[in-house]
Amino acid sequence: MTLRNFFEPSSVAVIGASREPGKLGHEILRNIIEAGFKGKLYPVNPKADEILGLKCYPSIKMVPTKVGLAVIIVPARFVPSVITDCGAKGIRAAIVISGGFRESGPAGEKLERQTLKAAKQAKIRIIGPNCQGVNNTAAGICASWPLVKVRGPISIISQSGTISAAIACWAADEGIGICKLVALGNKCDVDETELLDYLANDSETKVIALYIEGVSDGRKFMKVARAATDEKPVVVLKGGRTAKGAEAVLSHTRSLAGSDAIFDAVFKLVNIIRVNDVEGLYDICKGFVGLPLPKNKNVVIITSSGGSGILATDACEELNLNVMDLPAEVCDVLKDKLPPECILRNPLDLTGSATSQMYDEALEALAGISDVGSVIIVVGDPMLGISEVIAKHFARGKTLVPVMLGGGQVEAEERAKLQGSGTPTYSSPVRAARTLAALARYGAAER
Amino acid sequence: MTLRNFFEPSSVAVIGASREPGKLGHEILRNIIEAGFKGKLYPVNPKADEILGLKCYPSIKMVPTKVGLAVIIVPARFVPSVITDCGAKGIRAAIVISGGFRESGPAGEKLERQTLKAAKQAKIRIIGPNCQGVNNTAAGICASWPLVKVRGPISIISQSGTISAAIACWAADEGIGICKLVALGNKCDVDETELLDYLANDSETKVIALYIEGVSDGRKFMKVARAATDEKPVVVLKGGRTAKGAEAVLSHTRSLAGSDAIFDAVFKLVNIIRVNDVEGLYDICKGFVGLPLPKNKNVVIITSSGGSGILATDACEELNLNVMDLPAEVCDVLKDKLPPECILRNPLDLTGSATSQMYDEALEALAGISDVGSVIIVVGDPMLGISEVIAKHFARGKTLVPVMLGGGQVEAEERAKLQGSGTPTYSSPVRAARTLAALARYGAAER
Repeated sequence: MTLRNFFEPSSVAVIGASREPGKLGHEILRNIIEAGFKGKLYPVNPKADEILGLKCYPSIKMVPTKVGLAVIIVPARFVPSVITDCGAKGIRAAIVISGGFRESGPAGEKLERQTLKAAKQAKIRIIGPNCQGVNNTAAGICASWPLVKVRGPISIISQSGTISAAIACWAADEGIGICKLVALGNKCDVDETELLDYLANDSETKVIALYIEGVSDGRKFMKVARAATDEKPVVVLKGGRTAKGAEAVLSHTRSLAGSDAIFDAVFKLVNIIRVNDVEGLYDICKGFVGLPLPKNKNVVIITSSGGSGILATDACEELNLNVMDLPAEVCDVLKDKLPPECILRNPLDLTGSATSQMYDEALEALAGISDVGSVIIVVGDPMLGISEVIAKHFARGKTLVPVMLGGGQVEAEERAKLQGSGTPTYSSPVRAARTLAALARYGAAER
Repeated sequence: MTLRNFFEPSSVAVIGASREPGKLGHEILRNIIEAGFKGKLYPVNPKADEILGLKCYPSIKMVPTKVGLAVIIVPARFVPSVITDCGAKGIRAAIVISGGFRESGPAGEKLERQTLKAAKQAKIRIIGPNCQGVNNTAAGICASWPLVKVRGPISIISQSGTISAAIACWAADEGIGICKLVALGNKCDVDETELLDYLANDSETKVIALYIEGVSDGRKFMKVARAATDEKPVVVLKGGRTAKGAEAVLSHTRSLAGSDAIFDAVFKLVNIIRVNDVEGLYDICKGFVGLPLPKNKNVVIITSSGGSGILATDACEELNLNVMDLPAEVCDVLKDKLPPECILRNPLDLTGSATSQMYDEALEALAGISDVGSVIIVVGDPMLGISEVIAKHFARGKTLVPVMLGGGQVEAEERAKLQGSGTPTYSSPVRAARTLAALARYGAAER
């Protein structure tokens, strides 16, 4: 069975919906409503007639029409029988939010086995249990929390609800948005590998962010991941790199963190980009969806801030990018166009008296040089109008990575304008370089 | 002569003040006015009668009263004679913003020598030239840009104007504020070492952020730095770690970046904390001013997000902190106070159903255990009221490092409340761990 029912159901039942704000059964129902789901939505709760203006049903069996997806928030001990009822109702996909399963000890482990058994018998696929749900912005289904509605190209598969939520919130804040989000929880049935396969073939998803603590089947994961990275970039953050981290993994999701060296080798082999923190995961996904892949490792750094240009240089060099010599033809053009205080090297230092016009000249001179794979554009204390200049050159297809820092109100405005035009911006030279290095590595491997 | 004239002058002349918004001579004058400087302020410009409502003087010699500090923004070729005039006027401190000196080639180098010679003859100390100025929030003197007025405990010495501005802006945004900021520029006279010495003895400065590309006198720097770190923490970001970065340093400020391995050894020897990016510089300064030093390397991680707790564990372990076993007495207390789904290990996982009350219980149980040097408090999708709980325990003096992520509006509100109460917050487990590791290392070395 396809996983499509989880993302594009015609109707959704929220089993364990609650009248009480703050309860998950209330928040999830409200988030689905507020996300703008267009299909039928059925709260199920034997003790309520109506929740959030929707007629409430005492059990899933009483719902009058066909239901595509069940979101289950009832206490763990009721879940197996609810699953059986869902099966009888013809439902083929259930998201089990409820905790109290394998993560909580032997009794929960037994309940999880019973749940899975009921699901197999009923031919229902399960995401969870003990999970933070699923969001598909395109369908207006935020069966998760917090509410994130901004539609965009980043999809997220995560063994941590908070980590997926953090990526989604940051992407919403910057207007980039997300596509599909799945918080896996205990992954008793649907796992990271199956979702990776699904999202690799999902045309709306342009990049996949993955937080995992282990994989269910290493061999299958490798095969699927290799095929996935041929389709689109996959960026992974793996918890449990250290011995104590691995112990914590065992407590959290009962995953075996495994040898980190092996994971590292596998990720390299299948061209998955690896990061070590949540912000790196976000930064690089943002880069993949916002920036064209650089054609080569050669970088030119344009800067109004000498110091920031140097930090970018250090970071690029350490990350295996090449801070190339400024091409002679670029020097020739620019020495007549830029004031004499500018330093015609790489970094190309426009100095503190840089203007938008000077950035424009520099970008113009670099535009036609195919040997220049990418340009990091550092704007210290951004000036009015710089966003238009960057957006203009951005539209011409070279990989331009804007960095803005050290400014006040004007920086905030120019940054917002750039983001509004779909151009990602970074707040430090190092984060920009790290992103660019990931793009260059992915691009080189896929060429 | 003391450097005090740069920070606490009774009166300031802005030589090269401009009527034209956008020009530095205008912006700096306006920033000094808007920062609330209480002393006399004299714009000097032969072509204007009045600028920004202040009477303008044709030359510094015509200013009627004594002047404590000159801020000079005239073209480079006029600077030596302006310095001589300042000397005749009895001024003892001048900030030279103007560029066009050593950084611009042989002619500029000559001008810089002439400027320095004039200064020596006139007994004037110079910050700059080619610099982004000085800010002292306590005195309301923002002789720099952008305007930053929020007064706080972080002082900054930087060979990059943008990097110091970035730290200042972030500190202002989070309500932490800055104390004294100096953008060194070409440091023809006053250098990082002399300022380090001055700020080490400045009672308002609680931590010193340093961006350098080289040092003028290594031996003197070591001596001063060692004394400074006995007084307060010093955090350094050094540009030019790589060969190409070092080349760029030479172009930027004509500093010799020197052997990075030697710098690294020196920083360790004198207990300077080293970071490799601007955000790290800010994060760690924020930690030093907001958090008490941990008494030892033992960390407990409390989390509502299993995944984030694991990331914190990995980062702590890699950074030489000890993710200790959860003390038995803490387990004993908490097993009766927390719901059974909580995982009584370290990380102490309160799970997704964590409440403020549960954090309160956990922090209470840890409060009296002196073996626990610090607590990282990860709050995934923060709940209303968590800031009060953290603030309450924070006031009791243990090193608590709050991390908030994966939440929407409530997170923003709770974060703002915590920051308002003077408690720093971090947005990722890794940034929090990095900060804590720096504090622990500094604390251990100074014990």
